[in-house]
Amino acid sequence: MSYNEKTISKENIFNGNIIALDVHTVELQNGKKSTREVISHPGGVAILAFTDKDTILLVEQFRKPVEMNLLELPAGKLEYGEDPETCGIRELEEETGYKAKKFSYIGKIVTSPGFCNEYIYLYKAEELIPGEMKLDEDEFLNVKEVKLQQVKVDILNGKIIDAKTICAIGMVSI
Amino acid sequence: MSYNEKTISKENIFNGNIIALDVHTVELQNGKKSTREVISHPGGVAILAFTDKDTILLVEQFRKPVEMNLLELPAGKLEYGEDPETCGIRELEEETGYKAKKFSYIGKIVTSPGFCNEYIYLYKAEELIPGEMKLDEDEFLNVKEVKLQQVKVDILNGKIIDAKTICAIGMVSI
Repeated sequence: MSYNEKTISKENIFNGNIIALDVHTVELQNGKKSTREVISHPGGVAILAFTDKDTILLVEQFRKPVEMNLLELPAGKLEYGEDPETCGIRELEEETGYKAKKFSYIGKIVTSPGFCNEYIYLYKAEELIPGEMKLDEDEFLNVKEVKLQQVKVDILNGKIIDAKTICAIGMVSI
Repeated sequence: MSYNEKTISKENIFNGNIIALDVHTVELQNGKKSTREVISHPGGVAILAFTDKDTILLVEQFRKPVEMNLLELPAGKLEYGEDPETCGIRELEEETGYKAKKFSYIGKIVTSPGFCNEYIYLYKAEELIPGEMKLDEDEFLNVKEVKLQQVKVDILNGKIIDAKTICAIGMVSI
């Protein structure tokens, strides 16, 4: 058995640079009404980039919502309508200064499906060659080469907490 | 080197039942200003509950933001100030009808740290005993027992895409 919730009406609250917010009034399975607060996000891409078979690239950057510096896979937002692989290739080069001769799809995830429609497409990049780093004007980050084994240790000890990063490592390990 | 972004001013856009939205004007590392759209969420808990050593509980429910039914770990939102373990024990029983004699911490994740402060605390539940299922009045879900090996296959084939679910499976597997 599967369910559905039909939107009866929708109020647009906000349209920002990154996200939009609508409140849907929905009809539930039992005929009653409820509201759903829904964030729209263009989605993104994250890249598990191997500098050798045991070492990956991570980026460290300040994340305002959690008020701390996080270690994450290189990643970026999709332009609306953009092909995820094209976006991944671009973002890898812009954030880390590397291009990849081999770029392959790992899978996709939804980050917070209870209130947000964000999908993140995960790719593996291998056989890296130098390219040109080019950060957005409000983007500041450190690129780090970290042994895959150390990344796993840091996931288990709570130093790496970013969901897309843990998902990608998990998906190439299970 | 680590970074920081100081909030100069903040505009509150929305305060809903689940999320709130503020737009921060921040001062960047280079002294320039930018804005950050920040969703506040109380955070949540998800539970990897084993009915035997090879089998876990998943719940299937409709997720309005992505307009589909998803298979996920049993999970729930924290009340503000609530202890995550207490929340996890409660949500496991309410969503699945099971209590656990053994409840242990796996780790925590941030789901979308670029625009949202949501943390999800992950727990492992073992030695399950019958309790009382009690869903919210706008909550409809199917509880399923799925072999752990099948869960891994479904993560890799794209049938399971929920980030917290993939993170928990990854963290007990790496």
